[in-house]
This record gives sequence, C-alpha cells and structure tokens, in this order.
Amino acid sequence: MTRRQPTARAAVERSLARIAEVDRPEIWISLRPAADLVAEAADVDARVAAGDDLPLAGLTVAVKDNIDVAGLQTTAGAASFAYEPVVDATAVARLRAAGAIVVGKANLDQFATGLVGTRSPFGAVRNAWDPTRISGGSSSGSGVAVALGIVDLALGTDTAGSGRVPAALNGIVGVKPTKGLVPTTGVVPACRTQDVVTVFARDLDLARSAVEMMTGVDGRDPLARTDAAHAALPARARLAVPLPTQLEGLADGWREAFVAATEVARSAGFEVVERDISALLDAARLLYDGAFVAERYSAVGAHIAAHRELIGADLDETVAGIILAGAAPAAHELFDDFERLDALRLRGAEALDGCVALLTPTTTWHPTLAEVAADPVGANSRMGRFTNFANLLDMASLAVPAGVVDGLSFGIMLTGPAFTDRVLAQIAQRIAAAPRRLFVVGAHLSGQPLNSQLVAAGGRLIGAASTAAEYAFHALATTPAKPGLVHIGAGGTSIVGEVWDLPAAGFAAVVDAVPLPLAIGSVLLHDGTRVAGFLATPAALEGATDISALGGWRAHLARA
Amino acid sequence: MTRRQPTARAAVERSLARIAEVDRPEIWISLRPAADLVAEAADVDARVAAGDDLPLAGLTVAVKDNIDVAGLQTTAGAASFAYEPVVDATAVARLRAAGAIVVGKANLDQFATGLVGTRSPFGAVRNAWDPTRISGGSSSGSGVAVALGIVDLALGTDTAGSGRVPAALNGIVGVKPTKGLVPTTGVVPACRTQDVVTVFARDLDLARSAVEMMTGVDGRDPLARTDAAHAALPARARLAVPLPTQLEGLADGWREAFVAATEVARSAGFEVVERDISALLDAARLLYDGAFVAERYSAVGAHIAAHRELIGADLDETVAGIILAGAAPAAHELFDDFERLDALRLRGAEALDGCVALLTPTTTWHPTLAEVAADPVGANSRMGRFTNFANLLDMASLAVPAGVVDGLSFGIMLTGPAFTDRVLAQIAQRIAAAPRRLFVVGAHLSGQPLNSQLVAAGGRLIGAASTAAEYAFHALATTPAKPGLVHIGAGGTSIVGEVWDLPAAGFAAVVDAVPLPLAIGSVLLHDGTRVAGFLATPAALEGATDISALGGWRAHLARA
Repeated sequence: MTRRQPTARAAVERSLARIAEVDRPEIWISLRPAADLVAEAADVDARVAAGDDLPLAGLTVAVKDNIDVAGLQTTAGAASFAYEPVVDATAVARLRAAGAIVVGKANLDQFATGLVGTRSPFGAVRNAWDPTRISGGSSSGSGVAVALGIVDLALGTDTAGSGRVPAALNGIVGVKPTKGLVPTTGVVPACRTQDVVTVFARDLDLARSAVEMMTGVDGRDPLARTDAAHAALPARARLAVPLPTQLEGLADGWREAFVAATEVARSAGFEVVERDISALLDAARLLYDGAFVAERYSAVGAHIAAHRELIGADLDETVAGIILAGAAPAAHELFDDFERLDALRLRGAEALDGCVALLTPTTTWHPTLAEVAADPVGANSRMGRFTNFANLLDMASLAVPAGVVDGLSFGIMLTGPAFTDRVLAQIAQRIAAAPRRLFVVGAHLSGQPLNSQLVAAGGRLIGAASTAAEYAFHALATTPAKPGLVHIGAGGTSIVGEVWDLPAAGFAAVVDAVPLPLAIGSVLLHDGTRVAGFLATPAALEGATDISALGGWRAHLARA
Repeated sequence: MTRRQPTARAAVERSLARIAEVDRPEIWISLRPAADLVAEAADVDARVAAGDDLPLAGLTVAVKDNIDVAGLQTTAGAASFAYEPVVDATAVARLRAAGAIVVGKANLDQFATGLVGTRSPFGAVRNAWDPTRISGGSSSGSGVAVALGIVDLALGTDTAGSGRVPAALNGIVGVKPTKGLVPTTGVVPACRTQDVVTVFARDLDLARSAVEMMTGVDGRDPLARTDAAHAALPARARLAVPLPTQLEGLADGWREAFVAATEVARSAGFEVVERDISALLDAARLLYDGAFVAERYSAVGAHIAAHRELIGADLDETVAGIILAGAAPAAHELFDDFERLDALRLRGAEALDGCVALLTPTTTWHPTLAEVAADPVGANSRMGRFTNFANLLDMASLAVPAGVVDGLSFGIMLTGPAFTDRVLAQIAQRIAAAPRRLFVVGAHLSGQPLNSQLVAAGGRLIGAASTAAEYAFHALATTPAKPGLVHIGAGGTSIVGEVWDLPAAGFAAVVDAVPLPLAIGSVLLHDGTRVAGFLATPAALEGATDISALGGWRAHLARA
C-alpha cells in the first residue's frame, strides 16, 4: 500500500468522532467500547513500530451484522436470532490480522433480504447524502458508514446486489468478488450457495486490497475456491452495454448519466457495443420468482416459523413473508429452475462473447424512505435488475460512482465471468483515468476568479456551449454569490457556458474542490451531448434568485 | 492409435456375425439394418483409402438407448417415451466423425435408473459370463455387447455408477470422465446435473481414446466444462483404500481379491494407505435417500405421472416408484441436502488428502437374476456403495477388471478429484504393468507339461508354497485331467504348489491361455499372503473327484 495511513490510534479516534458528528445511530447494531478500540489501536501501533508488516494498520472497518466478530453478537438484523460467536469470520480474521480495527457491527436488511436498507427493527438506514432517501441494502449500515467517512472499509455481503446497491446510492465503491474467493465461514447465510462477502471503500484500490487479503480457501468453507488465472486486460477491449430497451424505467436523468459514462469509457479506449442481455435479466428474475427463494427458508426459515409471534416486531414483516414463502416450492421445481438457469447461463455467455465485461447502471432508481414504505416489495424489486444475476451466473462484479444526478449519487457497475475480478478493477481504473469534459457556467469561466483551477489542472478550453432549453439558473444566496444550474425539463432555459477538457487527475482535483452547495453532475447540452458540469444541489436553492432569463453568469455579473 | 484395425467392412461383418452367434436379443432395443451398416462401412473405408484421418475407422459402437442417434428411436427403455432424434448426440457425432460405426441402440435400466440391468420392458440383460446373473446397469446392453465382442466400444451413461458396475460384472473397462468433459447434449437426463457419458471397451487405451475424442464444449450443453490441467502422476504416489470395516459385506472372496489387487498396486510402486472414507459413503447415500431424487422427477416424472396406466407394463414398476417419489421433497429440503453434501465434499477431500486416487472394489456383489427379482430395490442399493458418490462429489472414475473370483469377473475402481481423468488412467496402466505373482498347482508346476508357458512368459520360480487350510482340491473330469482348486473356508485342506513371478505382459499371456473351466483368482497362502492362482470355476466340479486328502497334484499323479 502506497497510501500514507494515520496511526491506528488516530484512526479510531477519528472514527469515534465521526460517529458522534454524523448522528446516524441507525447505522450500527453494536459498537465496540471506545476503550477496547483505543487499546487495540495501541497494540497495532506498537506492532507497526516493532516492524510488523500490517498493511491495513491505521484503517477502521465496519462489519455487517451477519458476519461474525468474536465478542460481539451476530444478529443478522433480528435480536431474536442473536448469538455470540467465539471466533471471527474468516474474512474478519484476515482483515484484523492485517492490522485493521473493527469498530462495530452495521445494520442491514434483516437476514440480508432486501436492497433497500429499511427492513430492520434496528431502524431504516438513511442515505449518506440525503436523509430522506434510502441507503440501499442489504448492507445498509456498512455502505453509509464508509460514505460518511466513519470507517475506511466496511464488509458487506451480496447475494442479489447487497454489496453494490448501497455503493451506488451513497457514492462509494462496492466490490463483489467471484463466489468462493473469500470464504463465507462465519457468515449467516441468506442463500448459502449464492452469498459473497463484499467490501465497501471510498476508493477502488483500497477495496481491492482488502479483497485480496481475504482471498483464499480456509479449509472450512466447502464452497471456497482457488482463484483461476485470467488474461490481463488487452489494450483494446470491448465492453458490452444493454440494449436501449433494457435501460427503460431508470430514474430521471440516469439514462443520460449512463450514456455519459459510456462516453467516458470510450474516451478511455474501450469499444462499447450494445448487446441483448435478456438472458441475464431473465436469470435475475429467477432469484425471487422461482424456487431459489427456498434457499432462504433453508437458511433461517426454521427460526421465523418458530417465532411467528414476532413478525411485525423483531421480525420484519416483508422479510418474513419472503422467507416463509420459501417453504412452498417442490425440489423438482427447483431442479427445473436449475435447468432454466443453466440454459440462461449459456445464452448469457453468448451475449457477452467477445466482451471483457458488461457495463450497466448499478441500480435503476433511488427511492425515498416514504416510497419504499408505501410499496416495500415493489420498490425493492425494481432495484435488482442489473445486480440479481451476477451470483446466480457465477460472475464477478464491482460498483463505482459515476457522477451526480439531481444531487444524488449515480453509480455504474462492471460485471464479468468468474475470476475476472482483477480485470474488472483494471477496467474501472482505466475508465477513472480517462480525460473528462467539463461544462462550467460561473466562476470557472475564462477570465473569472476560479478559472485558474482549470488551467492548473491541465484543462484546455474547447469552446463556448449552451445547455439544452431545460434548465433554470440561479444566483445562490452565498458569499460571494455562486451560480446554481438546475435541470427542470420542458419549459426551461438554455444557459451559456464553456466546455473544457481535463485529464482525469485534474478533473478529480477540480471536482474535489467543488464547494457545497454545488456538485458535479451530468448536463445536457444544446447539441444533445452530455457532459459533466456544475449543478446546484436542492439545498442550494434556499434564498436563491432565479436569473434564468439572463441566459448566463456573465450577463448576471454585467447587470449586478 | 497404434493398434492395427480391420477395415470398417470387416468390423461390421464381424459385429453382425457375433450378434447372431451370441443369441442375446435382450442386449438391443434397436439395430441398424445390415445394409446401412455395410454402406456406411464402405464409405468409411473409401475415406481412409483417400487419406482421411479417421482414428476410429474399423471400430464398431453400441449406444445406450438414452443417447440420441439420428434415424434411430431414443426410448430410454420405455416405448411410450420414444422419439426419433434428427441429430446425433454430441458424443455420438464425435465418434462417428472419427470413423466409428454405430451398430445399434443398447438396452438399459429404464430411464437409466438402476445398477442391475433387469429394469427394462425390453428384457433383463444377462451377464456376459454367466447368463443366470445380472449384467449390471443401467448401461446393461452396452457393457455386455462389449464383453461378448459384438462391438469394440459402447457408450453408456453414469449417474450413480451405471458406466462402471456393468464393466466390473462383465470383465471389461468402464471409463467415467469428469462431469462436463463430454457434453450431454442429446442424452435423456436421469439426474441432469449428475449425468456423465461413459465408455466401455475391452482395453483402457481404446476407452480413453474414445473419451478424448468426445471431450470439449459444444456450445449447447450449459454444463460442459473445459478440461483443467492436472499434474502428471508422480513416480512415488499414494493410493487410498477404504478402512477394513468399509469393505464389509462384499461377495465371498471379493475382499480377498481386493486385497490382492492392492498388493499388485504396491508392487507397481504405489504406497497404499487406509483412509476413512465415511464422508464419501455418506454422500453416496444422499443420492437416493434424500431430496436429490427429485431431479429424476424433474427429468421424466411428468411422463410417468401422465402414463400411470403403463406402470408394470411399458413403465418398470421399480423405476416408476423411485421417480414418482421424487415429486415429494421440498426445495428447502434439497438446499439442506446441498449443504450436507458440501460439508461431505470438504471432509471427503480431507480424507483423501495426499493421495492421488481412491482404490476400491467397483461394486459389492454380483447377484443372480433371481436374487434381484426377489428384492429389486435392496439388491440394487447394495451395489452403489463405491460408485454413487463420484458425480455428486465431482470426481473422475474408471473401472478395470482385477481378476476372477469363483468364475465371475471381479473389478476395481480408481476415483479421484475432477479433471484427474488422465492421472487415473496412468495409475491403472501402471498397476496393469506391475509384475504378478502366480500360484500354480497342476500342469504349470516345474517339470509338468505346461511349465514351459511360465518360462516362455519370463517367469521366475520363487519356490514351493502351500495354500491356507481352506481349500478343496479336485481332479476334474477333463481330458487330460486338470486340477481344480476351490476355496471352501474352515475345514479345508492346505494344498501344495509353487509361486512364480511373471512380468505383467507374460502374466497376461498365461492368463489368456487358461483353459475353461479353470480361471485365475485370488489364492490365500499358508503364510497369510494372497497371490493370483489357478482356481476351478463352479461348473468345473461336475463329475470331478475330490483329491484334497492327497495335498497336491504331484501326489495325485504319483497315485494315478
């Protein structure tokens, strides 16, 4: 690891401070006492000082509460199910052996059944960026703890997307390795043969490092597998994207943001080709619509059946309903589903033939807590379109942020055959390193005070450009006043600005420097193309003045 | 292929002649018209003459009737199920492309459900050596057609042992490749995820060649897998054998014959170590005692359920009973069984750790047709002890002859992890090439008329030796009179003879020259060791004179 890490002591102190600052108690089901953390940190720091090689020293970890940490209860999101494990799960033990410090056990959709983060008697986990919206699940607490900077790493699990959807909705990285690479010893099963231990982090390198440290058979998980070598990523490689019809029903602006992401992939040197992924989408539906749900009953159905009086209290009503329904299918129907799945696997592989990976949005929308409460099953089931199939079809997958749409995080996902884990990471890194185009409308315009940031970042002016006539433009109530571009759709105005090209590192530096309440998101230009651009977050508009009629910031300045 | 093969024309003529000679109509469900065979043979011979590389030209094949051959009905052993396939199964197509000629479709235990060979409305298939006994199944006709020299090769299928038990009971080779190496496209499923296409032949090289020609994904079987490289067999390797308690209940003399086989393996340079294989035996029981039987219902249950009026007529009563019972288990019970099986796989791998393969008897006994008729399920279920687990645990396996006990073939089996197919063949070849010790009691003794056979075969006299006091000794009613050694157990006599060492090829030549009614089997010597020796078959004793009291052949000659 090349990153400079703080001392373990500093890391746990920062973690404890952030827990207090963010005031999101629903993230945690249990936290270790501060004294224990400090003592363990002192021990780690002493070992590092003594020359021990502890690559994760100085990093803190949240562990989803369906993964055993010795000394802390494992609840899987149900107090009635709790037990106290004597040993760490293999994944946890390996991170601790590398010097990482476990801060606590994170909330989850009960029994890891859900993609929303609201199905827990320990409370619905609120989104890191917008507390009126869901965190995504089932690894809800894990994702938000990383996104809010409470911990450096978090462990999740992913059966149908639980290690990727929270990454997308909270603007972080979620890596779902190939099934079996990380042993699941010490993990409460959701669907035992489909479960994967996952990692959340704010950057991909760290997430991948943690995965590598957890990889390898442990002699206890019968489904653990040895890594298989895969060819390195070729210089010229093809990425598959779904057909346009298979991208229907996405949240407003997400399709455009996904198209912008494919443009970045192209500028990173990938050939992007449309493929019919109906076989994958059909496989995704099998996970809940067929007999596979019986595996959830096999895992924890006996507990729920024996505690029906707790349904609606300690046992989440939606989760209990899904799992109890798993008692019904016949074994021969399950074998029929295996046959369907095997045929879909073959068709799916054909569909992706010649492509190194599939590029998709990670999920399809980002509901509010209220929307999920109104339709717990329907709201959830829309979210797994692109995630549900990966484990059933034995694929590796990872989710990375790809911009901001209407103030919310938008994420993309790379999914490839088993054991392509490293290839997927290389693709993501290559995309992240691609030059970016940026649309600026205010202080970054040529001659304006912050233009020097673009120049210093290696930027090159492409020229003047205007948005599509779908925007409103505000002078925000900040000091100094900042411009606030907002997408309002039909009836909006075309706002003038400039397009700049920036190398990836420079782009990242500029984005990092964007002051709240502004954000970088996808902007639709007059010529129909999409580029990244400065947008106002919803909170920014409080007290702002609509200056759309002026058509641009320079006109506003001239009048001011 | 180094063997010199006849013309295809000569091969099909010999095949047709043998079909007539052996008078075993129950071997076949359908035969191709002679004119078609002769025409196809002429075409093959013409292509060879034109320089085509057809490595299987001049070889004939029987195909189990659950594998498609274009133009012949596929019945799977039930006329009511029959359909006429338009294309060959992948396995068949590949053999034909290499010049082999399919003679006909062979009888089987209906829907490949059984290890006996009696469960067919097309007739119980009688054993090649003893028509009062079963052929073994489910690939009954395939095994007997090879054993009786009707065809050079036969295709079987093996879910629980169907490609190995008939090999053992008919004195031939049966190769069960790793699941997925040979596509099952065009095969009627028994348990779709456990079925393997197998090869019977009279020698291992030919069987392995046929397997290699059929290996490789075909783009149609979703379960087809690419071969994985495995290390070559080390010079010094360890073979596991079951604990003595795990060899209980074998047919009379089989345990001794197995011990003799392990001695041969030792003399071939293998270290033979006892291992507790209870995990494998427990997995074997799961195949029929658990929810896995539901996969048979998934395959053909709908046909049986829709034709209940045919049970006892076209639908075998035992088979129908087994398959209909597969409707009952719940999917969550099947997931429970998967979990048990996964745990057993891990324990089984631990049990075989450090060993290149497991050496066992192929089956446990060889019942008569009457014994199976009296107890169709019980007689059958005893037979799968060492075969049932191989596919469930993803292992490769092959069965080879290992001598004669009481006039019946005795077979051993090598079973190893997935993709050890070539290693298993190397082990079998090394065992086959090991020098053999032979105990002689009659005309092969020093100075007697046939002693020159031993000398010509490269034999070396080790010295005089006596059997344990468990034998009877007869002068048979042959001309000239031959000695007949028979194991009778307690109350028997110690018979004197000589022990010779022979190179494997020489041993084989001597064994080949053994005239009926004698046979080579395992003989227990006075010092407790076991060696191969001349034994009388049961039929030999008709009209024989008991000369046990004389203690040896020379004493008999001296008195005669």
